[in-house]
Amino acid sequence: MFHKILIANRGEIALRIIRACKELDIKTVAIHSDVDSEALHVSLADESICIGPAASADSYLNMKAIISAAQVADVDAIHPGYGFLSENAEFAEICEQCGITFIGPTADNMRRMGDKISARQTVTDAGVPILPGTNESIETTEEAQRIAEEIGYPVIIKASAGGGGRGMKIVHSPASLANALATARTEAQAGFGKADVYIEKFCENPRHVEIQILGDKHGNVIHLGERDCSIQRRHQKLIEEAPCPVLSPELREKMGSSAVAAAKAVGYSSAGTVEYLLDKDGSFYFMEMNTRVQVEHPVTEMVTGVDIIKEQIRSAAGQPLRYQQSDIKINGHAIEVRINAEDPEKFTPFPGKITGYHTPGGMGVRVESAMYDQYTVLPNYDSMIGKLIVHAETREEAIKRMSCALDEYIIEGIKTTIPFHQKMMHNKEFIDGDFDTNFLERNKI
Amino acid sequence: MFHKILIANRGEIALRIIRACKELDIKTVAIHSDVDSEALHVSLADESICIGPAASADSYLNMKAIISAAQVADVDAIHPGYGFLSENAEFAEICEQCGITFIGPTADNMRRMGDKISARQTVTDAGVPILPGTNESIETTEEAQRIAEEIGYPVIIKASAGGGGRGMKIVHSPASLANALATARTEAQAGFGKADVYIEKFCENPRHVEIQILGDKHGNVIHLGERDCSIQRRHQKLIEEAPCPVLSPELREKMGSSAVAAAKAVGYSSAGTVEYLLDKDGSFYFMEMNTRVQVEHPVTEMVTGVDIIKEQIRSAAGQPLRYQQSDIKINGHAIEVRINAEDPEKFTPFPGKITGYHTPGGMGVRVESAMYDQYTVLPNYDSMIGKLIVHAETREEAIKRMSCALDEYIIEGIKTTIPFHQKMMHNKEFIDGDFDTNFLERNKI
Repeated sequence: MFHKILIANRGEIALRIIRACKELDIKTVAIHSDVDSEALHVSLADESICIGPAASADSYLNMKAIISAAQVADVDAIHPGYGFLSENAEFAEICEQCGITFIGPTADNMRRMGDKISARQTVTDAGVPILPGTNESIETTEEAQRIAEEIGYPVIIKASAGGGGRGMKIVHSPASLANALATARTEAQAGFGKADVYIEKFCENPRHVEIQILGDKHGNVIHLGERDCSIQRRHQKLIEEAPCPVLSPELREKMGSSAVAAAKAVGYSSAGTVEYLLDKDGSFYFMEMNTRVQVEHPVTEMVTGVDIIKEQIRSAAGQPLRYQQSDIKINGHAIEVRINAEDPEKFTPFPGKITGYHTPGGMGVRVESAMYDQYTVLPNYDSMIGKLIVHAETREEAIKRMSCALDEYIIEGIKTTIPFHQKMMHNKEFIDGDFDTNFLERNKI
Repeated sequence: MFHKILIANRGEIALRIIRACKELDIKTVAIHSDVDSEALHVSLADESICIGPAASADSYLNMKAIISAAQVADVDAIHPGYGFLSENAEFAEICEQCGITFIGPTADNMRRMGDKISARQTVTDAGVPILPGTNESIETTEEAQRIAEEIGYPVIIKASAGGGGRGMKIVHSPASLANALATARTEAQAGFGKADVYIEKFCENPRHVEIQILGDKHGNVIHLGERDCSIQRRHQKLIEEAPCPVLSPELREKMGSSAVAAAKAVGYSSAGTVEYLLDKDGSFYFMEMNTRVQVEHPVTEMVTGVDIIKEQIRSAAGQPLRYQQSDIKINGHAIEVRINAEDPEKFTPFPGKITGYHTPGGMGVRVESAMYDQYTVLPNYDSMIGKLIVHAETREEAIKRMSCALDEYIIEGIKTTIPFHQKMMHNKEFIDGDFDTNFLERNKI
């Protein structure tokens, strides 16, 4: 097992990793930008190193500074968390070259799954269903036209290197195809430094259902069931839950096996997520694989009892998985809401000083946050300041528990998305489990 | 189901009950003494009523005022929590006479189990093992001498109406018997208004292992496994865990069935606990039955997933249990520590104003507390200000999780037992599960 791990991240996920390391008797090294010296991850880690100025590019994305810190602190491994360098294949390679274990998949895994076109090819070969479309980059309008006719409108053009909705264009008729293709290519080039785009059948109002994967370095891969992450605003997830309210055990098994096949196809050896679109008729289609731990991993931990971060660290250290697929049982229902320092009406960032802070407690209530009273939420980083997770026997009970917990959560001095989530917990369609990824476009909450 | 419940308690247990009621869509009425108007249970309940001055006798034990409040607020039921009026048969009777459901067992249940001599008789008839001794009150030294000779020294003299160690005398030889009997009777008369005492074989260095019971008004009784509450100081529990580190599944089944038999013997229809002494050879002996929900109920909730408070409320409303014995599975390990506003060296109360408050979070960490920043811990009531509960896959992991959570728990301005618990989590014998009820008498922590 590792002796000392550097956590190349901040906020709640840094805390999550520090706690896991403490339980595994591993020393921790926090890194921080110079505006983050008062951050909770810095005070909870055994050591801390300032690695640069506020701008992420100069600190949390500064590979050179982070590797230097790792060498100075003499760590065995680096945990990248999510975001920042977590899916950067080059960083994973540099770590390995420096004799430091990158806690995550291999650079090759990331590359094969990170590029959407290559991922489509890889998973198709493994028998995973994908939406009809191209497995190559599309360059001319003629090519696009031919393919769109073949698969039928509406279609979606997506950036091969993309994510978060950038470089995505939905096309409903041949008339707008040429323009959409050009815009998508321009946005892809600007956003990801690569103009490659591909075309896919557009699935209308699907659910976003993803499968949590755990792999080790001995060829074992299991899945921990699904999460429904359909409640999104501009491709940003806001509420996640496990299990998905509409999934049958048979469909869970099918999607789960399919995700395991996708992971095995690249020899995946860490925690990861296979994201699917789930259509109303129960058809599901591979969207992408996230080669890191995700923000919403706690809902899976609540219903399976598996500590995903600890397992990920154990796997990275070469230990075999401690679970077989048959050990994994889904117990009860878990919901996570993302608490962002945002105006809950406009969804615009609202950084500032927290002048009062009190977290909810009680049965089945879990708080993942690096906030504390008098802490100043910085404008420099992501606006997510915490996650509130509840676990109960049924979905109905979980919604009520979440509603009570949200009522008890006090964050004064800044605006947060708590009022939005309170409304969601009383929304009839949400309570009925009747929603898809366009729910928030159709409904003003 | 009930429409509105009055919670005849304060502190963390009042919060626990309010949360359960909210999840069950039941309105809540908090009562409070005049020094408790700033208490969290008051602000979280739907309504609140001041029922008297600070002294418990005038407020939380003031039956007349509480019944008046219940009538004014027009509640269906009263939940007494633990302590205060929770085991007062007269109060349960008055509630029933006023058409208010007392959420707990019947007055008859309480009387039969509340008196130790009567309880011994009752459970003996149900085949529950008890320590050799008398099932009648002992008055003369001659009687005592004869019985002590019969069962063999050491023996213990206990008050029939007793609890908390008062009126208890251990006798190692005939020479000290007369004196001990006289003292025990005097203490029993002074402490409980009743001089009745009885004699039992004294079990040296046993573990305190108790079985959680759930019953309904349809004759169903199940058990939820055991809790080990051996870490005590002067008969006050400080740390509780589930499962007991030394119990085999067979012994669990035996003790569980025995507890169910004891409960069935009195037609028990609520949450309750059968307390046993567990001897080194695996023999167990009935100690007493607590006819209320206990401080340490959360550890059982963590390992079984059963919400004991909600089940208790449902049972009181006449609903049948939602579980059969075969539904109950023990998952992982849970530990609870009681956080008292006390000097951790001297175990003397340390009330005062909290000038900084931050609770731990993360996976498997549960906080049950009514504390908040700037709250003043009052000298008028019990010094327990919160409970920290952790749940993990194994006992070893749970101990580490507790240690991390204790490190993160910040309570400034007063002294608490957190440092004591931190030491316990690093104590070799505790870690090895090698302890009994006299652990803290032998070890300076």
